[in-house]
Amino acid sequence: MFVRNSWYIAAWGDELGQAPLARRILGEPVVLFRDKSGKAAAIADRCCHRGTPLSLGEVVESGLQCGYHGMVFDGAGRCVQIPGQDKIPASAFVPAYPVIERDHFIWIWMGEAAKADPARIIDASYHDDAGHWAERHDRLHIAGSYLLMIDNLMDLTHLGYVHRRTIGGNPSQHVNAKMETARTQTGVRFTRWMLNSPPPPTYVKAYGFKGRIDRWQEFEWVAPSNVLQWTGAKDAGTGAYEGNRAGGFQFKVFHGLTPETETSCHYYFATANGWAPENDAASDLFFRESRETFREDKNVVEQQQARLDEFGEDWLVNIVSDGTRVQMRRVLDGMLADERRTMAAE
Amino acid sequence: MFVRNSWYIAAWGDELGQAPLARRILGEPVVLFRDKSGKAAAIADRCCHRGTPLSLGEVVESGLQCGYHGMVFDGAGRCVQIPGQDKIPASAFVPAYPVIERDHFIWIWMGEAAKADPARIIDASYHDDAGHWAERHDRLHIAGSYLLMIDNLMDLTHLGYVHRRTIGGNPSQHVNAKMETARTQTGVRFTRWMLNSPPPPTYVKAYGFKGRIDRWQEFEWVAPSNVLQWTGAKDAGTGAYEGNRAGGFQFKVFHGLTPETETSCHYYFATANGWAPENDAASDLFFRESRETFREDKNVVEQQQARLDEFGEDWLVNIVSDGTRVQMRRVLDGMLADERRTMAAE
Amino acid sequence: MFVRNSWYIAAWGDELGQAPLARRILGEPVVLFRDKSGKAAAIADRCCHRGTPLSLGEVVESGLQCGYHGMVFDGAGRCVQIPGQDKIPASAFVPAYPVIERDHFIWIWMGEAAKADPARIIDASYHDDAGHWAERHDRLHIAGSYLLMIDNLMDLTHLGYVHRRTIGGNPSQHVNAKMETARTQTGVRFTRWMLNSPPPPTYVKAYGFKGRIDRWQEFEWVAPSNVLQWTGAKDAGTGAYEGNRAGGFQFKVFHGLTPETETSCHYYFATANGWAPENDAASDLFFRESRETFREDKNVVEQQQARLDEFGEDWLVNIVSDGTRVQMRRVLDGMLADERRTMAAE
Repeated sequence: MFVRNSWYIAAWGDELGQAPLARRILGEPVVLFRDKSGKAAAIADRCCHRGTPLSLGEVVESGLQCGYHGMVFDGAGRCVQIPGQDKIPASAFVPAYPVIERDHFIWIWMGEAAKADPARIIDASYHDDAGHWAERHDRLHIAGSYLLMIDNLMDLTHLGYVHRRTIGGNPSQHVNAKMETARTQTGVRFTRWMLNSPPPPTYVKAYGFKGRIDRWQEFEWVAPSNVLQWTGAKDAGTGAYEGNRAGGFQFKVFHGLTPETETSCHYYFATANGWAPENDAASDLFFRESRETFREDKNVVEQQQARLDEFGEDWLVNIVSDGTRVQMRRVLDGMLADERRTMAAE
Repeated sequence: MFVRNSWYIAAWGDELGQAPLARRILGEPVVLFRDKSGKAAAIADRCCHRGTPLSLGEVVESGLQCGYHGMVFDGAGRCVQIPGQDKIPASAFVPAYPVIERDHFIWIWMGEAAKADPARIIDASYHDDAGHWAERHDRLHIAGSYLLMIDNLMDLTHLGYVHRRTIGGNPSQHVNAKMETARTQTGVRFTRWMLNSPPPPTYVKAYGFKGRIDRWQEFEWVAPSNVLQWTGAKDAGTGAYEGNRAGGFQFKVFHGLTPETETSCHYYFATANGWAPENDAASDLFFRESRETFREDKNVVEQQQARLDEFGEDWLVNIVSDGTRVQMRRVLDGMLADERRTMAAE
Repeated sequence: MFVRNSWYIAAWGDELGQAPLARRILGEPVVLFRDKSGKAAAIADRCCHRGTPLSLGEVVESGLQCGYHGMVFDGAGRCVQIPGQDKIPASAFVPAYPVIERDHFIWIWMGEAAKADPARIIDASYHDDAGHWAERHDRLHIAGSYLLMIDNLMDLTHLGYVHRRTIGGNPSQHVNAKMETARTQTGVRFTRWMLNSPPPPTYVKAYGFKGRIDRWQEFEWVAPSNVLQWTGAKDAGTGAYEGNRAGGFQFKVFHGLTPETETSCHYYFATANGWAPENDAASDLFFRESRETFREDKNVVEQQQARLDEFGEDWLVNIVSDGTRVQMRRVLDGMLADERRTMAAE
């Protein structure tokens, strides 16, 4: 069961060129394509004539042409051409999904089209601000539920174990951090502050800190399926905790987890170098190391999913660090219940 | 559900040497073998003793010997030998299937043996007439229903899309062809005539036409699972349309689609060069290019099958070119109903 | 359905080093590990916190640490550490399985722990007697039920067919052997004697027999899942049949078949050179040839399993050589019924 009335990431904009792109989203096979003007569209990836995936076809002047018998569909899913036939039956259409391209993402709305308000799209406009945030991105397929990936991102106690060989460091080093968790209008956010603390070696190396620092890790889950990370440090006492995070060492990571099926998802991630955006080598290196880290998460979550597939979840035991997860599930359950209620009323 | 009382192609004769050959046909695992005299036989590919595939065994004097404990079965499925045991239980037999080798094919009858009339086997005797028809053949496995392949062959509107890179040419070039579709005693046949038309470049190159031609494409579906194609051209007005197709540029293609399961089939195809049968290079080239074309069909049909597996067929919309398909399905439904009626009465 | 109250082979001792070892046994994912003292333990391979396989983790001072959030479990399955949390909930444990390492095997008990009597472990102490029995071992995964492998081992009529290219020899050569089959306290044993018979060429080559020999093949099934083989020959009339098998040409093979699932198993096998234990080359060669033979069995049994999966067993016909198999199944059915009865009574 998925929250349908929400914007999900369907693809990176640069994944979609002249050829149509097949991708399963919320269980549905979808084909993305750009019309001749370059505008992205998304329709069901199955021709209403004989069922062939439309992604086998190609873009023509009036839309996407099926690669089997040549029927053409526009971005609204309407059949606009049938070779050798003038009349187009009213029943000749496929489902279409609202799509908006913004901040390097192609966002898709898999629910009721009338409710697809572009104002609800998450703001990632810093992706377009290369002068301050040097962005790099990629995508991983995860053979595990998007929920398990969200859980992973919102519980950092895994760092010392899953990422032992990459970013983990000493598992217990963050135990005394000041942790603030809050319900937001659109999800849950936590911030961990290590005020007036010695800078870790990688920070010193990257930025050249001379003395103690105020350091933060902020993760905001925007329900149902995205997590915005903002991590950094400034010289101690220079106002970061009070809200002025400008300057210093910092980066943002966008984690977009779009359900493919109930037990698999697409992981769209982008790193943004905010400490030296003009330094391409630093941006590249940071991106590559982050991607390695995410592959470690992928490995754990996929094996976790296999066990949950086999044994369910009833036997699992919560520990203290599951607080955020429990809170997130409650938010999600509320959204799903709302959606069911609305659908029943309509 | 399959029409069982019909001859299906089980294999090419040259596929079956001294070793037994395993092949699933109409859902049943079958083993084909040649006895010591070279005569082909077909029995169930599962020993009645412990279930082992008999295709793991080898041919001995009295039949096919199981590779596990050495029981021997003759071509009628009877156990004729049990090592270390004189008495053979009456229950020791496996299902057997009538088989006839003819015209390079091994034909099999998966229904009631008493009804297996060899006179009902499709005539492909031109395969034995190398002086007029130079034959080449092969086999493809298709992860799609044989019905989808039949649909494909009997609706040429796909040529301009699926075979764009091979034989497709201009999708609209055939729109004004004269099309004759007819119910036959054993299926459906259509013939397209392009009378007094300019020869396509490949025809000119292959045959050296100087002027306009009368050109035909004939496809005959012989229910349930074979399609006979005869395509060619002669100088305009030299009698082809009236029935004299001798001479000129022409070829035949035998398309045999034998169900493996409900959603997969074996595609036996043979091309026959009828314009220059003595020209081996031409026969080889034409065969190889045809095979590439059939691989394009395979790709489309397999992806179509995946969608039909997931979504069924109720949502599909017929267009004008589906006429032949609808007619064929009606014929098939009639055959299946007849078979059910007969079985109920017996 | 498996007999649970029995010792099964979980692994070869030398398969388990410092890293945990994942293995599915009787349908359950199990993780084997050695604590810091080297003692082997086995617990369920799924963390009770979030389900992650514990085999992704690593051994620490107090037990096996989950590779996701760092919980530690001891060999009894108790959670003994939760990072960042002092109190450990009583519900934080995973199933544990009694384990005993002996004779190169790690034995596991998947049933009621209270009944895990080490005295019931099969004696393979000759594995530790390198001076008389030079042991070599390995493991194969079999995509077939352990029952089919037991059937295979306890019915040697397959030798002439399955192992035609290896040890089979003439299928009929053993027909006149003296066969003694007996129910034992723990299973079924058969012994075949070829008294005062000419030695086969391989025996002459390996041992240098000059005249006739008394030759035996003994196979003992110890229910539910192991077969002990003892094969050899001595000069005729020197007492082998009367019980004195010392000297001469002989070897033992331990065949351990541990169910992985209902339709797959782990095959642990060990050969022991008892004729020239000091001859490493002979031991190695004999082991490698045996392994080839077992791969032939694997191939047949896996294909047999596929047929039984599809068609069941009701259509199968018993022959004379199935006597031992029928007897074994009766023993097993009795054990399973006993276990059900006991569980119902408790």
